[in-house]
Amino acid sequence: MPNTFGHLFRITTWGESHGKGVGVVVDGCPSRIPLTEEDIQKELDRRRPGQSKITTQRKEKDIAAILSGTFNGMTLGTPIMIWVKNEDARPEAYAEMEYIYRPSHADFTYQVKYGIRNWQGGGRASARETIGRVAGGAVAGKVLHTIYPSLEVISWVSEVHGLKAMCDPNTVSKESIESNILRWPDASNLEQVLKEIETAQREGDSVGGVIECVVRGMPTGLGEPVFDKLEADLAKAMLSLPASKGFEIGSGFRAARMKGSEHNDPFYMEGNKVRTRTNWSGGVQGGISNGENLYFRVAFKPVATLAREQQTVTVTGEEVILRARGRHDPCVLPRAVPIVEAMTKLVLADHALRQKALDLTAKSF
Amino acid sequence: MPNTFGHLFRITTWGESHGKGVGVVVDGCPSRIPLTEEDIQKELDRRRPGQSKITTQRKEKDIAAILSGTFNGMTLGTPIMIWVKNEDARPEAYAEMEYIYRPSHADFTYQVKYGIRNWQGGGRASARETIGRVAGGAVAGKVLHTIYPSLEVISWVSEVHGLKAMCDPNTVSKESIESNILRWPDASNLEQVLKEIETAQREGDSVGGVIECVVRGMPTGLGEPVFDKLEADLAKAMLSLPASKGFEIGSGFRAARMKGSEHNDPFYMEGNKVRTRTNWSGGVQGGISNGENLYFRVAFKPVATLAREQQTVTVTGEEVILRARGRHDPCVLPRAVPIVEAMTKLVLADHALRQKALDLTAKSF
Amino acid sequence: MPNTFGHLFRITTWGESHGKGVGVVVDGCPSRIPLTEEDIQKELDRRRPGQSKITTQRKEKDIAAILSGTFNGMTLGTPIMIWVKNEDARPEAYAEMEYIYRPSHADFTYQVKYGIRNWQGGGRASARETIGRVAGGAVAGKVLHTIYPSLEVISWVSEVHGLKAMCDPNTVSKESIESNILRWPDASNLEQVLKEIETAQREGDSVGGVIECVVRGMPTGLGEPVFDKLEADLAKAMLSLPASKGFEIGSGFRAARMKGSEHNDPFYMEGNKVRTRTNWSGGVQGGISNGENLYFRVAFKPVATLAREQQTVTVTGEEVILRARGRHDPCVLPRAVPIVEAMTKLVLADHALRQKALDLTAKSF
Amino acid sequence: MPNTFGHLFRITTWGESHGKGVGVVVDGCPSRIPLTEEDIQKELDRRRPGQSKITTQRKEKDIAAILSGTFNGMTLGTPIMIWVKNEDARPEAYAEMEYIYRPSHADFTYQVKYGIRNWQGGGRASARETIGRVAGGAVAGKVLHTIYPSLEVISWVSEVHGLKAMCDPNTVSKESIESNILRWPDASNLEQVLKEIETAQREGDSVGGVIECVVRGMPTGLGEPVFDKLEADLAKAMLSLPASKGFEIGSGFRAARMKGSEHNDPFYMEGNKVRTRTNWSGGVQGGISNGENLYFRVAFKPVATLAREQQTVTVTGEEVILRARGRHDPCVLPRAVPIVEAMTKLVLADHALRQKALDLTAKSF
Repeated sequence: MPNTFGHLFRITTWGESHGKGVGVVVDGCPSRIPLTEEDIQKELDRRRPGQSKITTQRKEKDIAAILSGTFNGMTLGTPIMIWVKNEDARPEAYAEMEYIYRPSHADFTYQVKYGIRNWQGGGRASARETIGRVAGGAVAGKVLHTIYPSLEVISWVSEVHGLKAMCDPNTVSKESIESNILRWPDASNLEQVLKEIETAQREGDSVGGVIECVVRGMPTGLGEPVFDKLEADLAKAMLSLPASKGFEIGSGFRAARMKGSEHNDPFYMEGNKVRTRTNWSGGVQGGISNGENLYFRVAFKPVATLAREQQTVTVTGEEVILRARGRHDPCVLPRAVPIVEAMTKLVLADHALRQKALDLTAKSF
Repeated sequence: MPNTFGHLFRITTWGESHGKGVGVVVDGCPSRIPLTEEDIQKELDRRRPGQSKITTQRKEKDIAAILSGTFNGMTLGTPIMIWVKNEDARPEAYAEMEYIYRPSHADFTYQVKYGIRNWQGGGRASARETIGRVAGGAVAGKVLHTIYPSLEVISWVSEVHGLKAMCDPNTVSKESIESNILRWPDASNLEQVLKEIETAQREGDSVGGVIECVVRGMPTGLGEPVFDKLEADLAKAMLSLPASKGFEIGSGFRAARMKGSEHNDPFYMEGNKVRTRTNWSGGVQGGISNGENLYFRVAFKPVATLAREQQTVTVTGEEVILRARGRHDPCVLPRAVPIVEAMTKLVLADHALRQKALDLTAKSF
Repeated sequence: MPNTFGHLFRITTWGESHGKGVGVVVDGCPSRIPLTEEDIQKELDRRRPGQSKITTQRKEKDIAAILSGTFNGMTLGTPIMIWVKNEDARPEAYAEMEYIYRPSHADFTYQVKYGIRNWQGGGRASARETIGRVAGGAVAGKVLHTIYPSLEVISWVSEVHGLKAMCDPNTVSKESIESNILRWPDASNLEQVLKEIETAQREGDSVGGVIECVVRGMPTGLGEPVFDKLEADLAKAMLSLPASKGFEIGSGFRAARMKGSEHNDPFYMEGNKVRTRTNWSGGVQGGISNGENLYFRVAFKPVATLAREQQTVTVTGEEVILRARGRHDPCVLPRAVPIVEAMTKLVLADHALRQKALDLTAKSF
Repeated sequence: MPNTFGHLFRITTWGESHGKGVGVVVDGCPSRIPLTEEDIQKELDRRRPGQSKITTQRKEKDIAAILSGTFNGMTLGTPIMIWVKNEDARPEAYAEMEYIYRPSHADFTYQVKYGIRNWQGGGRASARETIGRVAGGAVAGKVLHTIYPSLEVISWVSEVHGLKAMCDPNTVSKESIESNILRWPDASNLEQVLKEIETAQREGDSVGGVIECVVRGMPTGLGEPVFDKLEADLAKAMLSLPASKGFEIGSGFRAARMKGSEHNDPFYMEGNKVRTRTNWSGGVQGGISNGENLYFRVAFKPVATLAREQQTVTVTGEEVILRARGRHDPCVLPRAVPIVEAMTKLVLADHALRQKALDLTAKSF
C-alpha cells in the first residue's frame, strides 16, 4: 500500500509537486470529532514555504479545502478528502530536468522504477507530498485530543550542521520553539546556528540536522507486539519522510556504549502509578508505551538541491555538469518540525484506535 | 496486523518462550522454490543460544519442522508452516516474575496492555520470538536467490560498548565475520572486545552495540514511494526487533553534520550503468534502490536481564529489590546478526515481488 | 479499510452525494498505461443519471477531472486522483430527512453507527458513491487491456421484476446490450419489460432485477486460495454495491438442485488447451480461473426511494408517514451495468498483478 | 493476503490434506477470553468426517492442540496457534491423481497457477483446510459471547437436491437442527431427503443444497461502508468456502421479482427500539446491521468426487476415463453447517472489534 499509512486510522496521500495539487484522504476517522479547514490550515501554515529567509522562497499559500467527510464542522465517520492546489508551479524552471538526473534526488530511481516521471519538479518525491501528511496529522491530532485531552506532541530542531540545542525534553515549551524561525529552543546559540545556515545559503550549499520529538501525557498500552511495536511504526513513519536518514528512540545509538546496569530504567511507585526513574527506554518497553514521555530523534540530510555546479549524468548516459539552481531551502529542518509532529500523531491515533478495539473491559456498545 | 510482516511475501510469527514452541507461517511465497528443513536449520543454528561462552547457556536445539507448504523439496505456493519446539523451558526459574516487573523488560507494559501475561519467561517479548523471523528469513533468502542470484546480505557486529570494528562494507567477507564467536570482522581488536564482554558477564552486567548490514548485488527499483520506501520498511523491520533502539541508513545521523555539497552522491557512468561516486544515500534515493550497495546500521541496547540486584516494583505496587538471575546473554549482538539478516531478506523479498507485479514490460503469463 | 478495495491494484473512494463532490484515488496502478480523462468519462457517462426516461431525472454531468498520477497521457505509477463535482445537489429537497428515517435506506443505520449523518441526501450510502468505482474501474480496464488485449467484460440486465432476457453469455454482444436504454439483450420482450418499468414508475413504485456478467478471453491462474478465491473477491465486490442482495457464480443456486454427475465439467483437449465441455463452474475451480468464461449473476432489490407514502419513524422515536418523494430511479438496473463491470475489472486487475508477482518463471527485471 | 481473513480479528490457515496437519493462527484476539482446547474440539467434532452414514468414511479424530496464545485457560492477546494432525492420510489412494485432473476439482487450476501441486489428495483445495476456519471460528465465538452474551449464530441445511426444509429462521432451534445427521430442521420431510442422499450415494453420485444462517441478538452498527459492508464481508467469507456457488442476504434473488412497495421494510417503534415490520433487508441496511436478525443463504454444489467413471484429461494432454473412487461425501451439506457458522462468527468478531475502535462515546482506557 505504497501511498497509504496506518491500519485503522489511515491516510492515503496523492499528488505531484507540479500538477493540479496535492492532498490526502483520511479514512477510519471516528465520527463527531470537531474539524474545520482552520484546524488543518494552522498546521499547513507551519510547513509552508516562504515563511522566513532561511526557507525556500517558493510562494505557495497552501490553502486546505475539505471536499468530503465533515458536516456542520464535525466528522461524519466517512473519508475526509483534503485538497491543496499547486499555485507557484513553474515547470519551465525544470526544463533541464527532463534530460538530467539531479544528484541525490529521486530522478534516476523513479526513472528506472517507473520508466517515466513527471520531470517538472520532484513529482511525488517532492517535499510537497508531505502536505497530505500534515493535513492528515491535523485530523489525527483532533482525534488524540478527544481521547487523551492532556497529550501533547512537541518537536524541535535540536541539531544543525553539528551545532546542538540544549534543552530538556520533559520541560521544553512550544513557545520557546516557535519563537524563532528555526524552531530552535536554545536561545544561547540560536544566532550562531542561523549564521551557519546563512553562510551555507550564500555559498549555494545546504546543511543537515536532527529533529527531536517528545510526547507528554502518554497513555500506557499503545503499540502492538511484535511487528507493530510503537517504535517500529514510528521508525517507519520517520524514515518515510523525504531526506530523513536515521531514527533513534530513548537512548538510541548511545545505548551501544552503555552497560545494562546503566541503561535499565528502575521502576518505582509515584502514588498508584508505576514510573521509571530514568527513561532510556524512551517511553516504550516491549513495543508498548509505559506512560513515560515518548522521546525520539530523526536525522535529516542536507537538502540535495544546491545553487552550485555538480557532476551528474543524463538520461541517455552522458556525463555532464548540472548548472546551479535558483531558489531552494538551505536547511529543511524548521519546516520538517510540523511534519515530524504530524507523522507522530498519525501513528498514535492509529494505535489509540487499535488499543480501543482490544480492550474489552470497557463496553462501548 | 500485529504479528504479521510484509505485504506480498509475508510472515506471521507465533509462540511464547515458555509453551509448546514458537514458529512462523510464511504466506505469499512463490511456488517451485527449492526448500528443505536444512535450509532453515542452517540459519536457526546461527541464532541458537549456547553457541559460545558469550551467549546465554540456555540449551535449545531449536529444530525446525516444516508442517506444510512444501512437496518433494519444493514450495507449493501455499502457506509454509515452520514449528520449533521449546525444550529447555524452566518456568519454575521464573516463579518470582509472577509478582515482579523486571526493569526494562516488557513485564509491566504487557500487564497494563493485556491485563494478563505468561510470566513463565518473556512470553512474546522473549527473543525466542525471533526464531520465527529467522525461519521466515531463510525462506525469503531462497526466493531472493532465485530472482537475483548474485545478491548477498551480510551483517556483522560493528560496535560493542563503544569499541568499533574497522571494516569496509563493500568488501567485508562472510568468512571474516563468521570466523569468531562475536561475528566481528576486525581481527585487530577482537580480543579486546571479547575481554570487555567477559568482564561485563563476570560483573553480572551486559553491554550494547551496533550491527551493520550491507546488501551487495542490489537490483535497482526496489521500494515503493511514499510510505513504503525501502528504508522505511527496513527501519520498521529493525525497530521491531527486541532490544533495538536505532536505525540509520547511509550517512545516517552523520548527515546532520554534513553540507549538501559533501553529502550529494555525484552520478557517473560505468559502462552502460549509472553509478554514484560516493554512497551517502546508502543505496536508496527517494525510497527506491539505485543499484549501489544497501547499507544501514542498527543500535541494540544492553540486555536487560542482569545477574545483579535491581530496584523495581511488584504487580501490587510495592517497591522491592529484584534478585540476581542466573543465565543470560551478556551481549546479544552476535546472535542478533542472523536476525538482522533475516529481517533484511524479508523486506527485500517482499519488495522484489511487489516490483515484479508492477513491471508490465515483462509479460509473465 | 472501509473505503479501500483491492490488495495491489486498489481504489479508495470518497465523497458524499451532497457536498463538494465524489471521487477516487487509484493506487498501485502500473506506470506507462495510456490514460486520459476521456477514458474515464466514457464509463461515467454510462452510469450518469438522466440518461433516459427510466432513470432518475437528477441532472449531473459528472465530469471527471484527473488531479494527479498522469503525465502526457500516461500513468506515472503514482496515485491517480479523480474528482467529480456534485452539481445538481438540492439539499433543501431533503430537509425532511433530518428528522425521518426512510424505510430500507441507510438513514437509521448510519445514525446509530456514527451518531451523525449528512441528511442532505444519502451521503456515502448514495449510489453517487459508485462514481469513484466506475472511474477506478475505467483505469483497471486500461491495465487489463495492456496485459490481456483480448479480455472483455460484458454485463447486461437479465431480469426485471420476474421477466427474463434470453441470451447466451458466450456470444452476447455489447452492441445488442447498449442498443437500448435498459441494456437488455433480448429484443423479443424488451418492450414488455420497459412497459413494466413505466407502470411501476407511474405508480410511484420501483422494481428489482438481476445483472449478469461474463468475462471472455479469461487467462488461467487468477485468484488466490483460500480466502481470496476469485469468486470470493467478486462476491465481496458485488455485495458491496448499494441495493445488491445476492451473488452466484456458474451454476449458482441452481447447483442445489443438481447431482454431481450433472454438475461436474468434463475436461477435454482443444488442441493443446485444456477445456471443459460444460461450464457449471463459471470459469473458476478451487478459486482459480481455468480459462473458461467467467460468469456470474447479481441480484438487485427495487430502489427504496418511492413516490408513495410509507410508514416509518423519526429520529426521536415517533411513528410517522413519510411523504412521497419527487424524482427517483424506478429501476436502477441499467445504470448498475457499468458499475458491475467496473467492480469486475477492479477484481481482475488486482488479481492480474498478484499473479504477476508470483510467477517467477517470467523474469521481469 | 491469500490465506488470511479479517482485519482486526484475523485468522491465517495453513496445511494440506496430506501432510503433517492443518491449522490456524488467530491474531488480534483480545486478552482474557476464556479458551480451552475443548472449546475448539466441540466445533471440530461437528465438522469431522465419519460422523454418520451420509458423510465420508475417512477416519480422522481431528484433535485440536493449542500451541500458543493462552495461559491458564485464558487468551493472552498474542497469536493463538491451533494444530490438527492429519491421521488417516492414504496418499497411495491418490497415486492416479499425479497424472490425471479430476473434473470440477482444483487439480488443473492449481497446476497451471503454481506449476506444482501436492497430488496426494486435494492439498489446500481439500475441505480439510476448513478445519482451521472452524477452529478460528470457535475462538471468534468466545469473543462474541464476551461482547454480546445473547447473540447466537444458527445454521442449518435448508435445501438438498431441490427438497426444502420449512422452518422459521426467527424461531428455529439448535436442538431441532442437531437432532438428526443431516442438520435438517424439518421433521416432516427429513426421511425423504435422507433417502434421496442414500440413493445418490448408492449410484456413486452426490447432491448439492443450500445452507441458511440466522444471527439472533444482533447489535446495531456492525459493518463498515462502503466496501466492508457486513453483507460484502459475509459474501466473501461464504464464497471462499470450497464448493459454494452462491450467497444471498434477506430477500436475495427473490428481490429481483419484487416491487419497492413490497420490499421496503417499514420502521416502527417497539418501546424505545426502532424495529422493522418485515426483514427483506436481512438485518443489514447500507451495509450496517440494524438490529434485526441477520439472515442469509449459501448455495453448495454437489461434491465433485464421484464413485463413477468420468471423462477427463491427463497432465500431458491425453483424454482418459477417470476410474471410480472409493469413499466420498454424497452430500457435504451437514458438515458445512459448522463451517458456515464459523465464517459468520469470524466476520462478526472482526466487525465487533472494528466498531469498538470507532466508538469514542465509550472511553475504554
